[in-house]
Amino acid sequence: MNSPAVRHTPNSALYTDHYELTMLQAALHSGTASRRSVFEVFARRLPEGRRYGIAAGTGRILEALENFRFEQPQLDFLARTNVVDERTLEWLADFRFSGNIYGYAEGEAYFPQSPLLIVESTFGEACILETMILSMLNHDSAIASAASRMTSAADGRPCIEMGSRRTHEEAAVAAARAAVIAGFDSTSNLEAGLRYGLKTVGTAAHSFTLLHDSEKEAFTAQTASLGFGTSLLVDTYDVEQGVRTAVEVAGPALGGVRLDSGDLVAQARWVRDLLNELGNTKTRIMVTSDLDEFAIAALASAPVDAYGVGTSLVTGSGAPTAGMVYKLVSREGEDHEFVSVAKAAKNKVSLGGRKYALRRLDEHGTATAEVIGIGHAPADDGNDRTLLHQFVADGEVLPGWTGPEAVTRAAQRHAASLAELPTSVNRLQRGEPAIPTEYEE
Amino acid sequence: MNSPAVRHTPNSALYTDHYELTMLQAALHSGTASRRSVFEVFARRLPEGRRYGIAAGTGRILEALENFRFEQPQLDFLARTNVVDERTLEWLADFRFSGNIYGYAEGEAYFPQSPLLIVESTFGEACILETMILSMLNHDSAIASAASRMTSAADGRPCIEMGSRRTHEEAAVAAARAAVIAGFDSTSNLEAGLRYGLKTVGTAAHSFTLLHDSEKEAFTAQTASLGFGTSLLVDTYDVEQGVRTAVEVAGPALGGVRLDSGDLVAQARWVRDLLNELGNTKTRIMVTSDLDEFAIAALASAPVDAYGVGTSLVTGSGAPTAGMVYKLVSREGEDHEFVSVAKAAKNKVSLGGRKYALRRLDEHGTATAEVIGIGHAPADDGNDRTLLHQFVADGEVLPGWTGPEAVTRAAQRHAASLAELPTSVNRLQRGEPAIPTEYEE
Repeated sequence: MNSPAVRHTPNSALYTDHYELTMLQAALHSGTASRRSVFEVFARRLPEGRRYGIAAGTGRILEALENFRFEQPQLDFLARTNVVDERTLEWLADFRFSGNIYGYAEGEAYFPQSPLLIVESTFGEACILETMILSMLNHDSAIASAASRMTSAADGRPCIEMGSRRTHEEAAVAAARAAVIAGFDSTSNLEAGLRYGLKTVGTAAHSFTLLHDSEKEAFTAQTASLGFGTSLLVDTYDVEQGVRTAVEVAGPALGGVRLDSGDLVAQARWVRDLLNELGNTKTRIMVTSDLDEFAIAALASAPVDAYGVGTSLVTGSGAPTAGMVYKLVSREGEDHEFVSVAKAAKNKVSLGGRKYALRRLDEHGTATAEVIGIGHAPADDGNDRTLLHQFVADGEVLPGWTGPEAVTRAAQRHAASLAELPTSVNRLQRGEPAIPTEYEE
Repeated sequence: MNSPAVRHTPNSALYTDHYELTMLQAALHSGTASRRSVFEVFARRLPEGRRYGIAAGTGRILEALENFRFEQPQLDFLARTNVVDERTLEWLADFRFSGNIYGYAEGEAYFPQSPLLIVESTFGEACILETMILSMLNHDSAIASAASRMTSAADGRPCIEMGSRRTHEEAAVAAARAAVIAGFDSTSNLEAGLRYGLKTVGTAAHSFTLLHDSEKEAFTAQTASLGFGTSLLVDTYDVEQGVRTAVEVAGPALGGVRLDSGDLVAQARWVRDLLNELGNTKTRIMVTSDLDEFAIAALASAPVDAYGVGTSLVTGSGAPTAGMVYKLVSREGEDHEFVSVAKAAKNKVSLGGRKYALRRLDEHGTATAEVIGIGHAPADDGNDRTLLHQFVADGEVLPGWTGPEAVTRAAQRHAASLAELPTSVNRLQRGEPAIPTEYEE
């Protein structure tokens, strides 16, 4: 990782749905905005057939929290458009989050109903953070969950994130971060390098070859400037000729060739044979071209040294959002006692009450269940691992959960968390969650 | 629309793949970076079964272009991490785009191979814009294309964008903008209101009802603060009781009720009957709850007054990226003559040459084909409409294509462009593009 990273800190106050502020206004009016409240983020289910999800986005939430401030441009907008009344504007102008936030650490595996984030504060303070919290967790966890299946399928071969062009330009930066949390080696996204210290990589595209009057001239130009250790893209015209030309230009020191089209399994095999025959036994083969976790798994037997993954990664490989919700589960009543609350109407039943969670591990350290306690921490049977960490105490973000170092730690946690799960997590075919979610009331 | 809007102008230079800059370095080294070049954005195909796409994102590209500047933090990062050499850093420090950009206006329908954006400049200048241009067009067009099917299915009933929580927080702002371009009435996203002057709306969530000691207290608090014209969410406990309580609290002036769960078609019918029976014939019914274009179409016969759309909209309703590519199609040779170029290897064949496009219209003004000319504008048969507009001339962004006014114009263009297409565009079932793409060489 490279440091110092450059923080990106736009004002985040209006990453917020209109109704969060009208609810605040009405609650200020009725005197309920100051009721102590507990909101919880969870996913009712995993995307269809997935065995597990990977939590990501928390670090970005904590980084954005300090810029969740209603300053003059935001207040002027809200006043001009009559979103809320004068009293609410005054409350917003003074707003600083003063509560506590707990949750699953980034890189941790999660399952249906896992209490991924818990926000304890007044109703008003916790309510207005809803949209931003969900945006970041839903996006980043969707990407990390897909990325984890890809790195698992790659089985140790490096995966490189290169999907920036297929998603929103800022989502691309977050996607690169989430991918690295879930085991990707590096990214093509330079802003993610600047902001989070991620390793960035890249060499050349087809346009570079087409710019020159011949493939040989293009390869000569590239190696003259970037060195023989670069990767040459050999499929602009004819792959076999491309490989021969690459070796002719760069000799045995050629770092790599990239294949971006065609039947990659067969092609990787004969390109490997050709490279070896030409004496380039150390030249690596990188494959790109709409890879997903299934294509990566299919390439397991091919002599491939690295995978470049784009579209499928940044779109969550079929599940572009993690489906997490943010629900009021407990709040103070008129008598100042906490009351568990939950929506009761059809098809969206939730469980009220403050949640606690641990991962039950057997004597071999293998996970057997996600145990959720309601109102209290579940009993630890000796090997278990508690899953909730405190991120914010009385409005202060605790150290260690933000910035580039948080990404490094999350990547380590991802590896450790996966190693603990039953081997069924490595199955790509559809199935049930790798471990059941159990409640202890 | 509300003005003045507040521009969001982060430095955009590193929304860029690493390889764009290494290509630049190698091309500077070989002397080819200054070759005049034409890059073209197009989609090889529409998402499976879609009849048309809607172009969006161009306004954001033009807004970001002025902040595509390599300033000290960007240059320091590139130097520190050895992405490029000293000479390239100097070139980047001086970089200002000096070329021309043409393309389809936002809100315009497009088809396979439509030349959505054309960038004419030196290779170096056009190359480094690739990633940012594709990120913005791929994301925003994916959302606008899905949104257009939804507003078409809604057939005049207002659609409200409320998907911010299901996508990246900045993607959410762009999604709101793209939705309004494609006919949405308004958005829940406040930042989109601030930045683009979009109408924002919202009232309350289940948490507001749960915060209070009874549904009646919640409704009383909401109407006391927001007025009787507000919408009350009636499905926290029991829908029938919710409707009765809402009418009891707000009387005949109640603005609306919102239904967010259950069988919406049946529910909307009996809720309408109940409201009428209670004397609330003017109270509107808004439905939300995982709507997509198919659910909206299924609700056509139900007495629904507005649709709130979230997840499906911001994830492109199954097609979260538009699959557009940015290809070098023509460039100067050593003799200073332009040469058409295209990748020739398997399964990704492209057509070289500068493209021009018009929509062929018959005598009734109905579109019959997307006609693409290679190297010259296709002949206009009298009724046709040219599709390429100039957005940037010698590096200067031309007026009218950015800011809130561009969104308003794009929404008008969307309506006009759809009205011109054959009625098959309104079919939601899978099929061929509504009009064929034809080449005139």
